[in-house]
Amino acid sequence: MSRVVVLTGGVGGAKLALGLTALLGGERVTAIINTGDDFSHLGLAISPDIDTLLYTLSGKSDVVKGWGRADESWNFMASLRSLGGEDWFQLGDGDLALHVLRTAALARGESLSAITASFARAWGVTAAMLPMTDDPVATMIDTDEGLLPFQTYFVARRCEPRVREIRFDGAAAARPAAGVLEAIVDPSVSAIVIAPSNPWLSVDPVLAVPGLREALRAAPAPVIAVSPVRNGQSFKGPTSKIMSELGLSVDSATIAAHYGDLLDGLVVDTDDDLVVAGLAIGRTDIAMPTLDRKRALAAEVLAMATRLRG
Amino acid sequence: MSRVVVLTGGVGGAKLALGLTALLGGERVTAIINTGDDFSHLGLAISPDIDTLLYTLSGKSDVVKGWGRADESWNFMASLRSLGGEDWFQLGDGDLALHVLRTAALARGESLSAITASFARAWGVTAAMLPMTDDPVATMIDTDEGLLPFQTYFVARRCEPRVREIRFDGAAAARPAAGVLEAIVDPSVSAIVIAPSNPWLSVDPVLAVPGLREALRAAPAPVIAVSPVRNGQSFKGPTSKIMSELGLSVDSATIAAHYGDLLDGLVVDTDDDLVVAGLAIGRTDIAMPTLDRKRALAAEVLAMATRLRG
Repeated sequence: MSRVVVLTGGVGGAKLALGLTALLGGERVTAIINTGDDFSHLGLAISPDIDTLLYTLSGKSDVVKGWGRADESWNFMASLRSLGGEDWFQLGDGDLALHVLRTAALARGESLSAITASFARAWGVTAAMLPMTDDPVATMIDTDEGLLPFQTYFVARRCEPRVREIRFDGAAAARPAAGVLEAIVDPSVSAIVIAPSNPWLSVDPVLAVPGLREALRAAPAPVIAVSPVRNGQSFKGPTSKIMSELGLSVDSATIAAHYGDLLDGLVVDTDDDLVVAGLAIGRTDIAMPTLDRKRALAAEVLAMATRLRG
Repeated sequence: MSRVVVLTGGVGGAKLALGLTALLGGERVTAIINTGDDFSHLGLAISPDIDTLLYTLSGKSDVVKGWGRADESWNFMASLRSLGGEDWFQLGDGDLALHVLRTAALARGESLSAITASFARAWGVTAAMLPMTDDPVATMIDTDEGLLPFQTYFVARRCEPRVREIRFDGAAAARPAAGVLEAIVDPSVSAIVIAPSNPWLSVDPVLAVPGLREALRAAPAPVIAVSPVRNGQSFKGPTSKIMSELGLSVDSATIAAHYGDLLDGLVVDTDDDLVVAGLAIGRTDIAMPTLDRKRALAAEVLAMATRLRG
């Protein structure tokens, strides 16, 4: 049974991962998930991208708000605020269970991988959900307001500071989590997909884990990215803003150049005329507002992989 | 300005403490609170008696359910359960803020006293709320099912195991929290009240902290207990059950004997004919179903203290 591997960050990546599981069944999908956004808040271990994928694949995500879980309540936050606690990061009542259980399990010595797998199992998620690493990696944003931890930049400061550089503290010493490299080089894998998450904030931390790039280059399966930009705009605001601040033009050529020779193919929007020597280009509607469109985009990516495998 | 000190455990003690604050104003009341029920659950530091008093004095308690906060929601528990987490101890969504903030503050090195004071301040509680100690003390119940931590006995096993002995691990090495001994021996204190909490489970841990009994004996103010039993029954089930299992008769004479020479006075129910040589007995309605009755009982206790001071 052939499998598909998807490298994913937050909401955009989770959408394509959902499309892949809808198309193939979760048991044929392995997600390798960014943990550079993970942080400790109020003593709780929070893994935003893992949780976004958990909520999305288990059908619990809030598709209107775009993050967190549907039917969430906010009494914890109200009580926290009344006690003078830090309230810049929203923690829903139901969402807290993930953070409390993860924190307690980490304190008992369980790995983030094992904890994530147990959450996925409990919620009936059949896709393999692999954090990129069980070691601490922290995405840090060097800005005109100084060096900011990711969540401070992203949530507390709403991506307003101007980005100068992005780095991944701890990445050089991080080991890929169990199964990550094996999933990438597995000969039964038919496609490795880089989801349309923010390449600089969400995919680069994954690629910064030692061994990941080498495994992608060695993988027998074609590596195909889906562009997070079309018509000179990213689907989510910060990607465009960050690309501009880094002096890059907001187009799929920049995405292609960013991933460079890691890619065998790049899927861009229908009327994108990108041509890159040696890179297969797929053109289709890359917006994923509905489950059908998520599934259709997943099908386009896999069809491209079939063509590339020859 | 004269002050009143009250030694208190859970719900029954909080009722009388509320009566005292309603009568005198919170700024004239110091509560010394049992922490023997405190425990760590899911990695969270939980202080049930402190929180019961916080909820009661800030007007947030659920008077129907008899514990926790009013208008509570339970989405955390539902989510926890869906993830296979331990769900024998109920944690409300709003309630969680206390536990999360306390756990984080303790991890930063703040004392339980300082944390409790900051919660009280945030919620407008003007009474001084002093944990008996900042050191760990754990009430352990030796039962026919073996030695059980308090919450396992009380919540998970619903007080069903037969009690053989009760002990307070850590008490011998515990130091009274800052202000506790000072509050007891303060010459401006007009009464020291032992609230009608369970003497064996809730008041004994306070008395087990080294220096507490000596301070009560040395205190210039009269020490007056309110009986938690009347008509051969305790107000809350477990007290009667535990008294019986310990081979004690369920009456105010047992309460008087239990506190012994610590007491200058004991307040019992109206038609209780208790007589103890050398012990002043006050008779009044000791049930506290309404705020008026809580206040009235507080007034009776303080009137007795006035008589005892001569």
